[in-house]
Amino acid sequence: MRISELSRLSGVPNATIKYYLREGLLPPGRSTAATQAEYDEAHLRRLRLIRALTGVRGLSVASARSVLDAMTEHRTDLHQLLGIAFGIRPPESGTPDAAEGRPPAGSAPEAAALVDAMGWSVSEQNPARQAVDETLRTLRSLGIAYDWETLLPYAELAERTARHDLDHLETVTDPLEKAERAVLLTFLLEPALMALRRLAQENESTARHGGGEHTQA
Amino acid sequence: MRISELSRLSGVPNATIKYYLREGLLPPGRSTAATQAEYDEAHLRRLRLIRALTGVRGLSVASARSVLDAMTEHRTDLHQLLGIAFGIRPPESGTPDAAEGRPPAGSAPEAAALVDAMGWSVSEQNPARQAVDETLRTLRSLGIAYDWETLLPYAELAERTARHDLDHLETVTDPLEKAERAVLLTFLLEPALMALRRLAQENESTARHGGGEHTQA
Repeated sequence: MRISELSRLSGVPNATIKYYLREGLLPPGRSTAATQAEYDEAHLRRLRLIRALTGVRGLSVASARSVLDAMTEHRTDLHQLLGIAFGIRPPESGTPDAAEGRPPAGSAPEAAALVDAMGWSVSEQNPARQAVDETLRTLRSLGIAYDWETLLPYAELAERTARHDLDHLETVTDPLEKAERAVLLTFLLEPALMALRRLAQENESTARHGGGEHTQA
Repeated sequence: MRISELSRLSGVPNATIKYYLREGLLPPGRSTAATQAEYDEAHLRRLRLIRALTGVRGLSVASARSVLDAMTEHRTDLHQLLGIAFGIRPPESGTPDAAEGRPPAGSAPEAAALVDAMGWSVSEQNPARQAVDETLRTLRSLGIAYDWETLLPYAELAERTARHDLDHLETVTDPLEKAERAVLLTFLLEPALMALRRLAQENESTARHGGGEHTQA
């Protein structure tokens, strides 16, 4: 397809597609004339992934490119690919308030204790480890005495959540497409999962403190 | 305590505390002289809450004030208070991409179907409803055929997560402090819960596709 068709199907403006091509986020199309190129389904999928990384999750263009480069490099190794897809750090996990007194990167003793206790196999480099320790530090700085053991019941629920996530990925066969899907689901489901928690919290709060039409405890 | 002590204990600079006082986010202290006032534990707690709302979760000062005003207004009604605490919209749930074609506020048919199916008691005004529908629309615009039924297993896990949240709140007795704690936990635990999901995803992915030292399916 031409760039105009790619733009129509993806909803991404022509000029933005050309910018992604110049910046190397989108691989070049197949040249058909001096000023024309053909694009395919892989371009469309890649474009959706770029939009998810930069638009919905707010990664910089440079960060998105390094994620995409790493995925392309490991495109034949599903385990590596999914490691990259699941390891992308959410931009909001590094809070300004947690910056003081932060230990060197890679040192997340509470996450390590939690991962051990759960019997999980997780690489030392997974940035989610830091996010766990940072959150616990932030909570304690606000007078809430949470530690990694407090998180254990949540970790068990996260384990079951991850199984649902991976079950869904089983329906996709192409490794790169599977990794793209993993990124989309990991990032894009987050607002819905947090929204479900809020709806459930309101329900649970009504059941415990509310008008009495609920009796469930 | 004096403002300097309040600043030391909270880690919030003097000038920032004065700004919060001017903007009405922090109630005035008890005047002890023409230019001096005494502050107490309630000011310290309120200051931590303001920092959580504006710093960690990125609410504007105006949004934070309207949340705090609503909480103060309903300070004797725990059910109302927790409704406010749990109903605060996360700033990232309204994504730019989802803005086109958005139905009028309050119309979230997929969240409504989900809430019904779960048997939850949730107010029509809870903004998490919109976040559910927006996420599903975003996923479908990217070619991922999720609907509210796909979210049912996640909703069941969210229900159990909310029970852990509310169990923790039982340890706090003062209604306003309970609501403050609800806000802190709802907002501040989110990065850790999403981080736990990523760690669990890596573990699950390793178990299914990895080096073979894991056999769990």
